[in-house]
Amino acid sequence: MGSLKTEKTVTGWAARDSSGILSPYSYTLRKTGPEDVVIKVLFCGVCHTDLHQTKNDLGMSKYPMVPGHEVVGEVVEVGAEVSKFEVADTVGAGVIVGCCRECAPCKADTEQYCSRKIWSYNDVYTDGKPTQGGFASAMVVDQKFLVKIPPGLAPEQAAPLLCAGLTVYSPMKHFGLMETGLSAGVLGLGGVGHMGVKFAKAMGHHVTVISSSDKKRAEAVHHLGADSYLVSSDEAGMAAAADTLDYIIDTVPAFHPLEPYLSLLKLNGKLILLGVINQPLQFLTPMVMLGRKSITGSFIGSMQETREMLEFCEAKGVTSMIEVVKMDYANEAFKRLERNDVRYRFVIDVAGSNLDP
Amino acid sequence: MGSLKTEKTVTGWAARDSSGILSPYSYTLRKTGPEDVVIKVLFCGVCHTDLHQTKNDLGMSKYPMVPGHEVVGEVVEVGAEVSKFEVADTVGAGVIVGCCRECAPCKADTEQYCSRKIWSYNDVYTDGKPTQGGFASAMVVDQKFLVKIPPGLAPEQAAPLLCAGLTVYSPMKHFGLMETGLSAGVLGLGGVGHMGVKFAKAMGHHVTVISSSDKKRAEAVHHLGADSYLVSSDEAGMAAAADTLDYIIDTVPAFHPLEPYLSLLKLNGKLILLGVINQPLQFLTPMVMLGRKSITGSFIGSMQETREMLEFCEAKGVTSMIEVVKMDYANEAFKRLERNDVRYRFVIDVAGSNLDP
Repeated sequence: MGSLKTEKTVTGWAARDSSGILSPYSYTLRKTGPEDVVIKVLFCGVCHTDLHQTKNDLGMSKYPMVPGHEVVGEVVEVGAEVSKFEVADTVGAGVIVGCCRECAPCKADTEQYCSRKIWSYNDVYTDGKPTQGGFASAMVVDQKFLVKIPPGLAPEQAAPLLCAGLTVYSPMKHFGLMETGLSAGVLGLGGVGHMGVKFAKAMGHHVTVISSSDKKRAEAVHHLGADSYLVSSDEAGMAAAADTLDYIIDTVPAFHPLEPYLSLLKLNGKLILLGVINQPLQFLTPMVMLGRKSITGSFIGSMQETREMLEFCEAKGVTSMIEVVKMDYANEAFKRLERNDVRYRFVIDVAGSNLDP
Repeated sequence: MGSLKTEKTVTGWAARDSSGILSPYSYTLRKTGPEDVVIKVLFCGVCHTDLHQTKNDLGMSKYPMVPGHEVVGEVVEVGAEVSKFEVADTVGAGVIVGCCRECAPCKADTEQYCSRKIWSYNDVYTDGKPTQGGFASAMVVDQKFLVKIPPGLAPEQAAPLLCAGLTVYSPMKHFGLMETGLSAGVLGLGGVGHMGVKFAKAMGHHVTVISSSDKKRAEAVHHLGADSYLVSSDEAGMAAAADTLDYIIDTVPAFHPLEPYLSLLKLNGKLILLGVINQPLQFLTPMVMLGRKSITGSFIGSMQETREMLEFCEAKGVTSMIEVVKMDYANEAFKRLERNDVRYRFVIDVAGSNLDP
C-alpha cells in the first residue's frame, strides 16, 4: 500500500474552454483521507452531460474540466479506515462523490437528492479543490461513493450502467415498476433510452418504443428486443395504443408535447421524465386527473440502488450496447454523440490509452 | 312499497339554455328496475361544475338540465333486488350514476375512471333518457351508486362531502397520504379547498394554506384551523418554506405557474391537481427530477372511497362549512358562487323548498 499522504500527479483529458475540446492536462489528486480509495481508471462512459458541461451549455462550467462520471477502475490504494474495498477490486464511481450526510435525503439513503451533493467533476470538494472526472488515469473517491463491479459484468459493459443504467433503474424501483407483466413505453433511444428498453425487458415487461419517425424501428425491435414500435405521428396507431401503458420512460432532451404520451398511459400510469429540458413542458390538467396519471421524474439513483442495479444486471444478463474507443478519439466521439451517431454509448478504454501529450 | 313499474312525474329546477337560469321543470323519472332505489331529495350541494354545465362552459350541455350531484335523500322505494338499502334510509348520490362494470377501472373498484361512466345529469342513461340531477324532488339511482349517510352526520352537512369531500379524500387515500405527521399545502379556498384543509387537519397534518393575497389569512387560520398561511408573492416566505411539504392539494381552477409550488415540496412530494383548467399548465423538468416530485391529479373518488370517507368524517367529526338556502335562491346562489362569495358551499334545502312554479 503506497502513501496516501502525498498528492499524486495524474494526467486527464480536459476541456479548457467552451469549445469543449479535450486535451491532456496534468493535475494533482487531493490528499487522500482514511476513508478514501485510489482507483486506476480502466474505462469511462461518455454521457450527454459530459458534452453539455464541457461546452458550458448550462453556464456553470469551470475550466480546466476533466469530464467523465461512468467510471470503472481498479483499486490501487485504500485508506486506513476503508472497510468495503481492497486493492485489486474492480469498482465503479458515478455522478456524485460527496453529500452532506445530515439532511433528510441523505438520512434516507437518497443522497442523490442532497442539496449539498458534490459532483464527480466541475464541482469543489470538501478540501476546496476542483473535482475532476474519469477521463483520467486515476481518481480518489470516498468509499461511500464506490461500488464493487460484480464479477459477472465486464468492466467496459458496466461503465454506462453507473449513470445511464442507474438513471432508469432507480425510478423503476422507486415507483414500484419492477413486477413482471407491466407494459412499458420508452421515448428516445439514446444512452439512457436503450438501457430503459433493456431493463424493462429484463423485468418481463412488454416494451413499446415510441419515436417521432420510423427510422429506428429495426434497431428497436431487432437489436434491442422491443416488443412494439409506435410512431408518434401515426394517429391511428397512437389511438389504438391509448390506455395501454403502465409507465413511460421519457428520455427526450428537448421540448415535446406531453398529451400524446399521457394518453397512452393506463389509469394510475406514470410518465417519468429523465431529460433536463430548458424550455417548460406543458399539459392540460384533465389529462392527468382523468386517469390519476402522474408526471414525474428522477435523478440518477442512490449508491444502494447502484449496488442493487449491478446485481440485477449480473443476474439477468443485462448489458449496455457500447462502442469502445481510445482517449485520442474522445473529441470525435463527442462530435458523433452530438449528432446522436452512436449505438448507444461510447466507452473510453482509459487504461488502454496513451493519455500523455 | 309502491310500484316501480310506472314512470313518476317530478319537478326539478332546470336550466333551459346557456344563460344558466334555473326555473321549475316537470319531467318523468325513468322506469325503475330491480336494482334501483327511488329517493326523495332532502339536500343538494351546489358545485362549481353545476355553474359550468348550466352555462355550457364546456360546450357539451343539453337542455333542459337539472343540475346537482351532491345529493342527500331519503329512500322511498326499493326495487326487488335491492339488498343494500331500505325505505327511510338516508342515502347519498354523487357525480356518477352508472359505469360499464367490465373495464379495468370498473373491475378495480375505481369506476370513476370508467370511460363509459354515466354522469348524474347532462348525460344519457342506459334506457336512452337524459339523466337529471338533485335539484329536484326525487331521483332514481342504481343501488351501486348510493351510499348510506352515517347517523352521526347531518344530511345537509353530508351533501358537499359527496363531491367536494370525496375529491380531496380519494387522492389522499390513493397516494398514501393518510398517515399522521405529514405536512400539507392547500391552494385555493373554495368548496374543495376548504375540505382539503379539514381532511388534512383531521389526518393530523400540518396544514399550510397558500394564497395569492393576504385576504384569506384570518379565515384560513381561525375559521378552518390551518396551521400556517403563505402568500405566494412573498419571496422570503416562499423561500423559507422550500422543501417542507409532503403534498399540495391544488384546487385553483385557472392557469397558474407550478414552479413556486413544486419548490415547496419535499423529496418525493406530490402536487395534486383537482381543478379542470382549459389552458395548459407548465413546468421545467428539473423541478420534478431533482426531488423526484410528482405532478398528478385525481377525479372525484370511488363508491368504496365514498363509504370510507363518510365513516372517516363521522369518526373524526369532519364537517363541511355550508350556507343552506331554499331553491328559490338557487339563481342568486349561482351568481354568488361565480364571484366566490360563499363560505364555502351552498346547500339547497330541496325538501324544504317549494319547487313548483
